[in-house]
Amino acid sequence: MSSSFGKLFVLTTFGESHGPYVGAVVDGCPAGLSLSECDIQPQLDRRRPGQGPLSSPRSEQDVAAIVAGVEGGITLGGPVTVLVRNQDARPGGYADLAKAPRPSHADFTYKTKYGVVASSGGGRAGARETVARVAGGAIAEKFLTTRHGIRIVAWVSAVGGVEAPDLAGADPAREAVDNNEARCPDSSAATRMTEAIEAARAAGDSVGGVITAVCRNVPAGWGEPVFEKAHAALGAAMLSIPAARGFEIGAGFSGARQRGSEHNDAFVLKGGRLGAATNRSGGVQGGITNGEPIVFRVAFKPPASIAAAQRTADYEGRAVEIRVRGRHDPCVVPRAVPIVEAMAALVLADLALMAR
Amino acid sequence: MSSSFGKLFVLTTFGESHGPYVGAVVDGCPAGLSLSECDIQPQLDRRRPGQGPLSSPRSEQDVAAIVAGVEGGITLGGPVTVLVRNQDARPGGYADLAKAPRPSHADFTYKTKYGVVASSGGGRAGARETVARVAGGAIAEKFLTTRHGIRIVAWVSAVGGVEAPDLAGADPAREAVDNNEARCPDSSAATRMTEAIEAARAAGDSVGGVITAVCRNVPAGWGEPVFEKAHAALGAAMLSIPAARGFEIGAGFSGARQRGSEHNDAFVLKGGRLGAATNRSGGVQGGITNGEPIVFRVAFKPPASIAAAQRTADYEGRAVEIRVRGRHDPCVVPRAVPIVEAMAALVLADLALMAR
Amino acid sequence: MSSSFGKLFVLTTFGESHGPYVGAVVDGCPAGLSLSECDIQPQLDRRRPGQGPLSSPRSEQDVAAIVAGVEGGITLGGPVTVLVRNQDARPGGYADLAKAPRPSHADFTYKTKYGVVASSGGGRAGARETVARVAGGAIAEKFLTTRHGIRIVAWVSAVGGVEAPDLAGADPAREAVDNNEARCPDSSAATRMTEAIEAARAAGDSVGGVITAVCRNVPAGWGEPVFEKAHAALGAAMLSIPAARGFEIGAGFSGARQRGSEHNDAFVLKGGRLGAATNRSGGVQGGITNGEPIVFRVAFKPPASIAAAQRTADYEGRAVEIRVRGRHDPCVVPRAVPIVEAMAALVLADLALMAR
Amino acid sequence: MSSSFGKLFVLTTFGESHGPYVGAVVDGCPAGLSLSECDIQPQLDRRRPGQGPLSSPRSEQDVAAIVAGVEGGITLGGPVTVLVRNQDARPGGYADLAKAPRPSHADFTYKTKYGVVASSGGGRAGARETVARVAGGAIAEKFLTTRHGIRIVAWVSAVGGVEAPDLAGADPAREAVDNNEARCPDSSAATRMTEAIEAARAAGDSVGGVITAVCRNVPAGWGEPVFEKAHAALGAAMLSIPAARGFEIGAGFSGARQRGSEHNDAFVLKGGRLGAATNRSGGVQGGITNGEPIVFRVAFKPPASIAAAQRTADYEGRAVEIRVRGRHDPCVVPRAVPIVEAMAALVLADLALMAR
Repeated sequence: MSSSFGKLFVLTTFGESHGPYVGAVVDGCPAGLSLSECDIQPQLDRRRPGQGPLSSPRSEQDVAAIVAGVEGGITLGGPVTVLVRNQDARPGGYADLAKAPRPSHADFTYKTKYGVVASSGGGRAGARETVARVAGGAIAEKFLTTRHGIRIVAWVSAVGGVEAPDLAGADPAREAVDNNEARCPDSSAATRMTEAIEAARAAGDSVGGVITAVCRNVPAGWGEPVFEKAHAALGAAMLSIPAARGFEIGAGFSGARQRGSEHNDAFVLKGGRLGAATNRSGGVQGGITNGEPIVFRVAFKPPASIAAAQRTADYEGRAVEIRVRGRHDPCVVPRAVPIVEAMAALVLADLALMAR
Repeated sequence: MSSSFGKLFVLTTFGESHGPYVGAVVDGCPAGLSLSECDIQPQLDRRRPGQGPLSSPRSEQDVAAIVAGVEGGITLGGPVTVLVRNQDARPGGYADLAKAPRPSHADFTYKTKYGVVASSGGGRAGARETVARVAGGAIAEKFLTTRHGIRIVAWVSAVGGVEAPDLAGADPAREAVDNNEARCPDSSAATRMTEAIEAARAAGDSVGGVITAVCRNVPAGWGEPVFEKAHAALGAAMLSIPAARGFEIGAGFSGARQRGSEHNDAFVLKGGRLGAATNRSGGVQGGITNGEPIVFRVAFKPPASIAAAQRTADYEGRAVEIRVRGRHDPCVVPRAVPIVEAMAALVLADLALMAR
Repeated sequence: MSSSFGKLFVLTTFGESHGPYVGAVVDGCPAGLSLSECDIQPQLDRRRPGQGPLSSPRSEQDVAAIVAGVEGGITLGGPVTVLVRNQDARPGGYADLAKAPRPSHADFTYKTKYGVVASSGGGRAGARETVARVAGGAIAEKFLTTRHGIRIVAWVSAVGGVEAPDLAGADPAREAVDNNEARCPDSSAATRMTEAIEAARAAGDSVGGVITAVCRNVPAGWGEPVFEKAHAALGAAMLSIPAARGFEIGAGFSGARQRGSEHNDAFVLKGGRLGAATNRSGGVQGGITNGEPIVFRVAFKPPASIAAAQRTADYEGRAVEIRVRGRHDPCVVPRAVPIVEAMAALVLADLALMAR
Repeated sequence: MSSSFGKLFVLTTFGESHGPYVGAVVDGCPAGLSLSECDIQPQLDRRRPGQGPLSSPRSEQDVAAIVAGVEGGITLGGPVTVLVRNQDARPGGYADLAKAPRPSHADFTYKTKYGVVASSGGGRAGARETVARVAGGAIAEKFLTTRHGIRIVAWVSAVGGVEAPDLAGADPAREAVDNNEARCPDSSAATRMTEAIEAARAAGDSVGGVITAVCRNVPAGWGEPVFEKAHAALGAAMLSIPAARGFEIGAGFSGARQRGSEHNDAFVLKGGRLGAATNRSGGVQGGITNGEPIVFRVAFKPPASIAAAQRTADYEGRAVEIRVRGRHDPCVVPRAVPIVEAMAALVLADLALMAR
């Protein structure tokens, strides 16, 4: 049951990297919501490969088609379904996979688990599956924006060791994020990030990075205490994104070096309601939102697919040297920005329905 | 539905900090497993407060009583239930809470969400709830050890800015972890950690820290791809522990600064099976275990309850100075070690049943 | 995961027939609800054995103790937990079970599934488990009554071939139901039912029967279309009661013999809102409540435990004659009335939370 | 979350009656299973309208296309997705619906629940949704047949008051069921059923009926005790089928009139294993399969859509006379046979995965 996410606002995704479609079924989306493909396409476009010199040369239009759950531009309460056709599937590009599992890829673990692997690309483990996440997340975001005025913005805060200054307070818009290919609103850092990505590509290598996300206008009182804390749900969502390997909320790992007197957020009257003077909690206390912006960071490892030769072993254990073919990004972090936003929207939509 | 954890191996916890009992119901535990209170008590003892100068003076014996699901020392297949009596509940110690929410505590968010709060202590948000997690986790661990030979060991790898060297490869035993009060197997680091904790206590303050955990002998092929990746499930479990604010698997955030050629784990023949020459993936690739040790780290913020005076606001928004009374730890990280182990065991037991 | 029921209003039960406790954990019960043992005890008393000559001589007081989730008579939003001590457990009464499985009991199937069985009585399959259902259902009913004014009444409409006239329109109260031991508000039918039960007991035999239930004041719009229709949820709930073997809503099986023109419920203005002139739909149309009383019937088989000798086979397949010892009812249907009410309340409470 | 069914073998359906597609996503289907459209099409063909004079004149080819989860005729372990295009959608046929809700239809309850209704036909409540169930059930059946040798056959045992003799022991094949349009293997009863359907059609009316189903070769030990009993899961599945209003297993309602000595199934040695001499339990004891054939019956009400004029009220409560237009069956029971088989297969596939 690995392909569904959420309890009340539930996304189910389907489709392999090189099959005819990837699709998203969103069950639990409230009825009466205005929704069309125009709400989905912009985020799909931001996720799309082939947008510039930094990303994979795979060329996909990724056109969203809503085929169920909406009539006359209004959701009916049934499962909203989006199909996206795979236009540039090239099964031929992966012929070597059958012999040796790619290092740090899912080839070996899928083969162990299922006994069978998709003949080309990553199958369900490949990046195409995230198209469906972005489509589902865009629907969640439309619900959150319309009904709650929530605003979610993510950006690249580190790439290949280049760290941007803390921008959570600066409240950048998506337009500012998209101002450069690195998707970092700090142009100086963006320039150095781009250089780091280009250097990695030139070396046949890849780089990882970090995405920071801020969700504003989330009401206080969302999230379930004990096991389904708001930041635990966000953490699970983010760690389910391909290549994500770390998550922290608010002060996170750096907060572990602080004293309580430094970390505690004092209460203060803000615009007529009780708010927090600082936001080291990142908008979540005791697992429940406190009305402050939710701020979190997600660490992405460098892509496992690199052009350079690698010493490894084949399925029989014989030492071999492999070169991973196919169309891959030297850095996935900029393209992961809308995926992080989508997963955040899906979590918040679910919390919204739980909180009623 | 916030009080249940897992899909097939399901822990449900109940009980408030200052009620008569905390309890754990473990549904889905396979029948025919040898189980008694002796399998549970040691981990409860490790979690217990009042063990030494570093921890809370609350005095609890925390005696586990199995009241259902076991007959003649053998599990029956029905829900195994453990009751632990609260012996040192002191509702009186928290009288000030009604007026002003404690900074960075769950008082404010619970009040917002539920309209009502437990009159004393944290209710379900308090540390007593973790007694039930440890009891449930011990049952999970018995299953994992008996049926799969799995071994889980966690330790304190950082406290108050003091970082221990990387010990994941050193494979410390629980005895080595318990050698000192800081629960850090590196005695030099342990000494400095203890000093940091004592300094915080002396200042009426608190410190956070990091726990590292290693799970050995987990078979390859556990974990579900897409949304229920093994490390996403572990992340959600760890982030649900009170005060946890960050999670990373394998190289985690530091891996985000590496290049792919540095991060990739080459395959190699190990003892007759295909293994990984390095373990930057932390035992999980594509969301599925690869047979290597699962290595992860959890960041804990400093406890919000500090003895020093704090400037904050009351529920009416008036500026007040409060001092948090009650019996609190200057550092919860050493006592969180068995909780981390418990949550890891619960995740792995669930993955084990899913993988059948 | 067989011991939990519901999605948002979730009952988990634990405890074996002859262990120290049976217990109920109700997670998802809204905070701020007035609740005490007085809300639970009356239904436990109605379910209790040893109430008169018609029922099992097992003597239990079944005293409910709320041990979590309630403070000062008000629910806190956390899991409400009720413990009921087993006072008259007699493991010795079932010594023969190890040799031959009792016909139409769960001995054989439990042994096949789990490899191990509770040494005495039915373990989790025994009637004691329903104590926890009744406790949980009473909490659900308190919620439904307080927040929605819902009223649930069930009664015995058939026993041992004796059928009462249709009383769904007569709207009997629980007091009228309890007027006689057969729990049938029609006194003439009740007399004949009692005779049928006594005749079965005298013959060392048992009888089955049917319970009819009516739920009034359920708002229109509850229930989920497609797979979680209101009557599908009610059916699953009722069929999970020990000995239940059939369920029908509204006209049910007899409706299958009608024509559409006879079965259709015309709409009509009722007290200012649109209602149904007749109620062959039993209050549910398209899986969603329509505001009319929900009317359903549940068929119970005769108890498998009879005093008379039975020809059967032992676990080795050898023909044997067995007599089932222990304290058993010749008819469980009257005592199942509060269990049916409890399960109905649990379903409706869950639908209520889903419908928000 | 109404559009998903199952815990481990999970069907999600999407699509409205008059949208472009209906679709089925089957998550949890084991990898390595041989599967193609040929495994799905025959059951879709049996469900299809327009097959003869007895059924709806809506003309659909209902061609299944597997678009995900299968490669080279083998399941990959990911979600298997089937699309079926709606070819004969005619939104125009339902223009009157906006004014008055059709009696005993879902128009009123959907409007109440969602505030909005699909402009034509039943939307998610219409019969087209069952196309996706049949597709999903065919995949489940392929799994059950291949891995467990299970055989599921359902037939019409009553229509419009005409009852066929008990055929559960006769073990009819699907070919025998399809021998006549009534889908009743007893040709004499089939003739009278056909006459009853034709008479209803001639009168502008409709008739209900009963389907009996038998599942053979189900291993003993499947099903979860307490809340997820095998027959409770089957009951929920069957009652979720449009127009289903009753469910019974084994002796069911008639068993409620029996004595224990008549109803009990004695054990006996059968082909080297312990079996039951009779099958009044219908293959399930204590909620767990006992290895005997699972036998159950499902009651279907007469279709609410009838050609004859009906007195009812419009949404404003004014008395009106309406005639339901559109293409409808005078009796849906014969076409529901593959739907019953599909839902049975989905339940058993889920129990199979749970039982591992």
